[in-house]
Amino acid sequence: MTLDICPLEWRYASQEMRYIFSRENFINKMIEVETAIMRGLEKSGFAPNGCWERIAKVAGAINPREIDELEKRLGHDVAALVAILSERVGMPCGNYVHLGATSYDIVDTAWALVLRDAINLVKKKLRRVIEILIDFAYRYRDVVMVGRTHGKHALPITFGFKMANYVYEFSRSFERLCDVEKRVVRGKIAGAVGTMAGWFGKGLSVEKEALEYLGLESHAIATQVAPRDGFAELVSALAILGSQLDRFALEIRELMRDEIAEVFYSAGEIGSSAMPHKRNPTTAERICGLAKILRGLVLTALENIPLMHERDLTNSSAERILIPHAFLVIDQMLEDMLSILSKLSIDEANMMRNLELSKGNIMSECIMSKLVLKGGVPRVQAHEIMRKLSRESYEKGIHLKEVVLSSDIVKMLSVNDIEECFDYRKYLGSYNELIDRAIEYAKNAIGI
Amino acid sequence: MTLDICPLEWRYASQEMRYIFSRENFINKMIEVETAIMRGLEKSGFAPNGCWERIAKVAGAINPREIDELEKRLGHDVAALVAILSERVGMPCGNYVHLGATSYDIVDTAWALVLRDAINLVKKKLRRVIEILIDFAYRYRDVVMVGRTHGKHALPITFGFKMANYVYEFSRSFERLCDVEKRVVRGKIAGAVGTMAGWFGKGLSVEKEALEYLGLESHAIATQVAPRDGFAELVSALAILGSQLDRFALEIRELMRDEIAEVFYSAGEIGSSAMPHKRNPTTAERICGLAKILRGLVLTALENIPLMHERDLTNSSAERILIPHAFLVIDQMLEDMLSILSKLSIDEANMMRNLELSKGNIMSECIMSKLVLKGGVPRVQAHEIMRKLSRESYEKGIHLKEVVLSSDIVKMLSVNDIEECFDYRKYLGSYNELIDRAIEYAKNAIGI
Amino acid sequence: MTLDICPLEWRYASQEMRYIFSRENFINKMIEVETAIMRGLEKSGFAPNGCWERIAKVAGAINPREIDELEKRLGHDVAALVAILSERVGMPCGNYVHLGATSYDIVDTAWALVLRDAINLVKKKLRRVIEILIDFAYRYRDVVMVGRTHGKHALPITFGFKMANYVYEFSRSFERLCDVEKRVVRGKIAGAVGTMAGWFGKGLSVEKEALEYLGLESHAIATQVAPRDGFAELVSALAILGSQLDRFALEIRELMRDEIAEVFYSAGEIGSSAMPHKRNPTTAERICGLAKILRGLVLTALENIPLMHERDLTNSSAERILIPHAFLVIDQMLEDMLSILSKLSIDEANMMRNLELSKGNIMSECIMSKLVLKGGVPRVQAHEIMRKLSRESYEKGIHLKEVVLSSDIVKMLSVNDIEECFDYRKYLGSYNELIDRAIEYAKNAIGI
Amino acid sequence: MTLDICPLEWRYASQEMRYIFSRENFINKMIEVETAIMRGLEKSGFAPNGCWERIAKVAGAINPREIDELEKRLGHDVAALVAILSERVGMPCGNYVHLGATSYDIVDTAWALVLRDAINLVKKKLRRVIEILIDFAYRYRDVVMVGRTHGKHALPITFGFKMANYVYEFSRSFERLCDVEKRVVRGKIAGAVGTMAGWFGKGLSVEKEALEYLGLESHAIATQVAPRDGFAELVSALAILGSQLDRFALEIRELMRDEIAEVFYSAGEIGSSAMPHKRNPTTAERICGLAKILRGLVLTALENIPLMHERDLTNSSAERILIPHAFLVIDQMLEDMLSILSKLSIDEANMMRNLELSKGNIMSECIMSKLVLKGGVPRVQAHEIMRKLSRESYEKGIHLKEVVLSSDIVKMLSVNDIEECFDYRKYLGSYNELIDRAIEYAKNAIGI
Repeated sequence: MTLDICPLEWRYASQEMRYIFSRENFINKMIEVETAIMRGLEKSGFAPNGCWERIAKVAGAINPREIDELEKRLGHDVAALVAILSERVGMPCGNYVHLGATSYDIVDTAWALVLRDAINLVKKKLRRVIEILIDFAYRYRDVVMVGRTHGKHALPITFGFKMANYVYEFSRSFERLCDVEKRVVRGKIAGAVGTMAGWFGKGLSVEKEALEYLGLESHAIATQVAPRDGFAELVSALAILGSQLDRFALEIRELMRDEIAEVFYSAGEIGSSAMPHKRNPTTAERICGLAKILRGLVLTALENIPLMHERDLTNSSAERILIPHAFLVIDQMLEDMLSILSKLSIDEANMMRNLELSKGNIMSECIMSKLVLKGGVPRVQAHEIMRKLSRESYEKGIHLKEVVLSSDIVKMLSVNDIEECFDYRKYLGSYNELIDRAIEYAKNAIGI
Repeated sequence: MTLDICPLEWRYASQEMRYIFSRENFINKMIEVETAIMRGLEKSGFAPNGCWERIAKVAGAINPREIDELEKRLGHDVAALVAILSERVGMPCGNYVHLGATSYDIVDTAWALVLRDAINLVKKKLRRVIEILIDFAYRYRDVVMVGRTHGKHALPITFGFKMANYVYEFSRSFERLCDVEKRVVRGKIAGAVGTMAGWFGKGLSVEKEALEYLGLESHAIATQVAPRDGFAELVSALAILGSQLDRFALEIRELMRDEIAEVFYSAGEIGSSAMPHKRNPTTAERICGLAKILRGLVLTALENIPLMHERDLTNSSAERILIPHAFLVIDQMLEDMLSILSKLSIDEANMMRNLELSKGNIMSECIMSKLVLKGGVPRVQAHEIMRKLSRESYEKGIHLKEVVLSSDIVKMLSVNDIEECFDYRKYLGSYNELIDRAIEYAKNAIGI
Repeated sequence: MTLDICPLEWRYASQEMRYIFSRENFINKMIEVETAIMRGLEKSGFAPNGCWERIAKVAGAINPREIDELEKRLGHDVAALVAILSERVGMPCGNYVHLGATSYDIVDTAWALVLRDAINLVKKKLRRVIEILIDFAYRYRDVVMVGRTHGKHALPITFGFKMANYVYEFSRSFERLCDVEKRVVRGKIAGAVGTMAGWFGKGLSVEKEALEYLGLESHAIATQVAPRDGFAELVSALAILGSQLDRFALEIRELMRDEIAEVFYSAGEIGSSAMPHKRNPTTAERICGLAKILRGLVLTALENIPLMHERDLTNSSAERILIPHAFLVIDQMLEDMLSILSKLSIDEANMMRNLELSKGNIMSECIMSKLVLKGGVPRVQAHEIMRKLSRESYEKGIHLKEVVLSSDIVKMLSVNDIEECFDYRKYLGSYNELIDRAIEYAKNAIGI
Repeated sequence: MTLDICPLEWRYASQEMRYIFSRENFINKMIEVETAIMRGLEKSGFAPNGCWERIAKVAGAINPREIDELEKRLGHDVAALVAILSERVGMPCGNYVHLGATSYDIVDTAWALVLRDAINLVKKKLRRVIEILIDFAYRYRDVVMVGRTHGKHALPITFGFKMANYVYEFSRSFERLCDVEKRVVRGKIAGAVGTMAGWFGKGLSVEKEALEYLGLESHAIATQVAPRDGFAELVSALAILGSQLDRFALEIRELMRDEIAEVFYSAGEIGSSAMPHKRNPTTAERICGLAKILRGLVLTALENIPLMHERDLTNSSAERILIPHAFLVIDQMLEDMLSILSKLSIDEANMMRNLELSKGNIMSECIMSKLVLKGGVPRVQAHEIMRKLSRESYEKGIHLKEVVLSSDIVKMLSVNDIEECFDYRKYLGSYNELIDRAIEYAKNAIGI
């Protein structure tokens, strides 16, 4: 066991996402950027023909560990990289490695490459989440349950309708990731203060050839660094997604309460070292816990925007922690979400039992509306009538339908109208069309 | 003097933005939404013909103060509104006011109307900021000054180039506002749990007719409330913009230091009650101060996303503070920004004096590059040569040009090459094209 | 209706707390500080004898509104104050008003006075909260209910025991407020850069006489301003208290769920404009909502610490919002808490019903422990035995006691031992002593 | 190279602090807590005599790696620990391992042990920082420099006086750590819901004996977990300290600007891969960068307070990241601070040059005060006179002394009085006594 400290290294996140944010991968991406710049230098007439081919060849053979070792001596990662690359490329091409560039041409463009992969991985998992939720919306479209507002019973919905809301919400996050991607996945090849001075007037050509190789758009202009608003927007988007996952996990945790027991996801896990009977929603709780980390990171990302003049370095240490942690945390949350979804089942009997809990009181809105529409009672007055009958039902413990049927309402509404109001399935409004509308929105957003 | 507490009421923000977030305006917007719903009810066959016309007529004559008064008695704002509206509309139309709707149909759709206006006002002021910065980029395109990284002299830039960076950065915020607008300026007319049950199958028609009147898109689906990720994204976008203004204001504050003195904005203000000589950048400092408020509000907005089930009310009190404060703060910041820009002037002499401060050392990169390109020196070695000469120049207090001219470098580079490196204007790279590129980007973004 | 925007002005917080943070009160406190400084100036030989008496006399007659008006013209609040004070005091004493002082001597010392009052008010309300909770802990000491972890049934506790935990938690906040008070309620009378230069060597005397009058300790040293770590600590302490109130309110909201229904606080409130039957925990939800505002404000307070050199002004605008809002929000939360506590009642029948819900499974730990202690079964094995029997009980829907009694456990434990385990009252451990210990801790903390 | 991701594992923080927060150490602390509980069990009559001795003996021989391996299989860290401990201890003592305890008795008490060590290490380094700053305050007590407010020249101070302010500020953080320590370094040995039920009435004895062994105070009462306000207060205290270090580092960065150049800390570091001349304040910038991480973590810690009922698990994943990261970040910041302090030197010549920059204008307050005190001019009028003369001095570029000497002021003040005002050393007020007062405060706080 090494000195494991940060649980993102060993406890949380997928191996795939961990690799994306590993030192090794970052060093490899930086090598890729130096290679791309050599292409720019060659095509712009600085470096001799063949240098790009040469660096591309040796680049693959460099062990990130070597650069790591040299950095420890030099105290500067890009300097170490340049030194080793120059040596390997050999003369004369070695002369041209990094020529005219500044460290953050390498770092920020490497970030763009890393972020492209990381955002894609998030989108892939999020798309999967949405697809499963769409399945749920279809499958449970007509399973009636009580809708809850303020934690109290409100009106009937269906479990599919509930799922369709999440379909819509997560699709909005998917859209958001696409929006931010266009602002943050951009290369920055512009030299020490952004003027491209080191390329003596041919900077635009160097930039074009380099970024073409990497498949990246360029920032329109830059200081020594790419503007940091993009990173802040990205972390915000991840924290918003994380807070949506938090909302879903909270939903599951609440619906799994012993007194509610409407949904389950099986668990072979030991629940408690003290209490052998416990089966706890720990995966859902982990999602809620990690969401708090994500929200905190947004503040750090925002504080990174006001850098001084052509940049100060205060973004650097913060970003080394901030960016990987944000992605590893959301990755674990998405994994947890997929794990929960893969095991989620519902208990329709309990849903129905809970629905009956209020003894019909949740249907008071229906009667109220019919009083207005069919009975000609002013809305305000109808609200007041039903508030009183509802109170009577609670106090006497009698089903609201009975209370209504033995009240003056029978003079205003037919028995049929009244009874229809207490058939939950008949008071689901346009849930069907709304589910379809949500799914259609999602399909457009995620492109399926 | 009343009990003024919150400085946004009297000290900060424009009257226009204040009005948008006043209780009065919100009540008016809620009346507008109730009117729109009546249109939906009438066109969908619930309310008699003419009710919409009727409510539209009386709506204008309602004094928000009356609703305010009644709310104090009822403890519920929408209930007060409905009671008064019903009474004014009279029978039979009064019966149909708010029929089938839930309070948050009114509140969330009123928010959408308020936010549409508020975002437009922010965009209007931000567009003005960008336009002025574009002017500055043109006007000061060729005014050379030192670029600073880590607070230290780096390489020459121009003041216009510096401004062009801000043009680009603010344009990205403009884009972001447009992106978020499409997700947050949407109506929510869907009843108590989002199913539209109260409209007995005709909910989509009610919604369509109501939102058409208001000129709003609809959410694809909703719970009792619109999903809160939109608000969080909006506040994030404002905080990002605020942090960019922070960056600009910090730039100004630093460039106004007595030792630097490159820019000014005049100030008739009393600087200090103790020190009669002081002329302080208080407006810029206020921008930086208010940015801290904005960043904190993002956290609150994020925490509002995980509402329970079909909603809990914990977003409500938080949003009553959060949303108005975010907009009033950014409004003050934009006003301050425009005020600074309107008075901003530069001191070219000081820019030149500071540029000379390093005695040519900031041009070491140029020599280094030429050593590689023309002298055939490996880049790593050239970097080392120049680092030493630079140290020599510092230690002896001699201009780097002289140090270079009396070093072995003369064997590798022509005197002309060396001298050219110390002409700041000749080492500005592609600043011209980059300024143009940034401005073009901005023009596309803001649509001019 | 004026342009009400910030709900803290009219919707939230007590009139008493609002007054403390009103402009009027702040201006009055600033007048008090100028009076105190005049005392210092007179006693230190700067101002003629009688000036302090004189200023004390006129000070009371100044209308804050006048200063307010003049500030609008001068753009500087302290300058306006000094001008009016000087004029009223008349010659020769008027000459000495504010002499040697800087604006933030006035502002920061006025803050100390305001904060002293505000912290006291918070402590007074918090003490009341703790006292009521102590009453509850006594009153409901023996009312058994289920303890819940992960939202799932764990083991029996009593409602008094639950309350005693809050007693302890809130007492810790009370302690914290006392700790921070000693660092933040301190005067700052030290001139423009903290050296007291304007008093030509007699600054310590001026400071001593001024602060003696105000009853304040002094900071040991200062820049132009008091160090801002104190404000950050204060806002953190309020946000921690707010998050504890959030925890209590969340507890109430959950225990009020229709399916749980163990506690209530009555509500004449209209629950919903759509659903006449609703009785929602809106007061508790407001506490949870406002807690989110408080947490966000901490960030702003922390960012105010790193001021440049002898101070920059970026704390000023932020604090004008931050400090009043933090106190008004916590004040509303404490008011809401007291309101809930005044109406809180419990439903013992439901508590018992829920306790039985798991059919004895929550008592599995007891059997497990006895298996170890009396049956000589290794703990790990006992855990496994009970996990299986617990599963059997769930699957078959049979009470765990029966499952246990028909298992091999009867060979290891006496029937009496087994039955005792299913008597909830006999498995409450040292709850009595712990309740007493918590109350004793609280009494020490709050001094009763 | 492994998959290094989190820079706290390899780039930041001292080996000592890393070890404290390593998995290995945490597992060792958990073993220690299980050992302590066995002591409680034995002394309270549950476990046979000799079991404590036995577990203490085998505990040392357990390899954390084994527990780590088993956890991977069981998915529960404490369960793995208990299984291995039980096996090693052997019969009959193995039966009693963890008896009556819950996982969080182990985890939270292990946290208390870890935090005790971590806080001590922070205090040790912070004490060192304060001691060095005290040395600086003595050494540079009389080195005059300009004090700056709003980034503009205000009045003279001394570098020692500046340092004494930091002495005071950091001492307040030291106090704060002592205050929080008493609330957070406490054991929690109270079983699954805090009632100690598993110890059948002898829980207080088990707790007492266990915590005595560990040298910890107990919480007065608990749920399944210790209350989370303590963690939030701790992280706040660290973030406040971090923001103070941020302030100091910002001071250094600004004073190191090329145009100011009043302080230095030498640097063999490569400043820039592009610009060979650069010597950047990267260590100071790192402090400022990491402070942003700390501030963000506070929000997470605050959100951990409102756990549901007798606890939910959402604090767990968040704390696994939050607590180690907060300490490792502050540790790196303190290391960086000590590194800067060890190399810090000042440039008195530049301090004097900058002091002269305003051509005497910074001394206008002195003249103003004398006009009042000796010339009988009303303060408001004196302020106005000096504001005008100051403007004249700026506009004409003439030293203020000359402007004053050729103005009507000579009629009101003696030439000697005027000249004295322009001797910076004579306008330092009570700086000497204030420095001493700050140092005395510090010595009390840190106990030297």
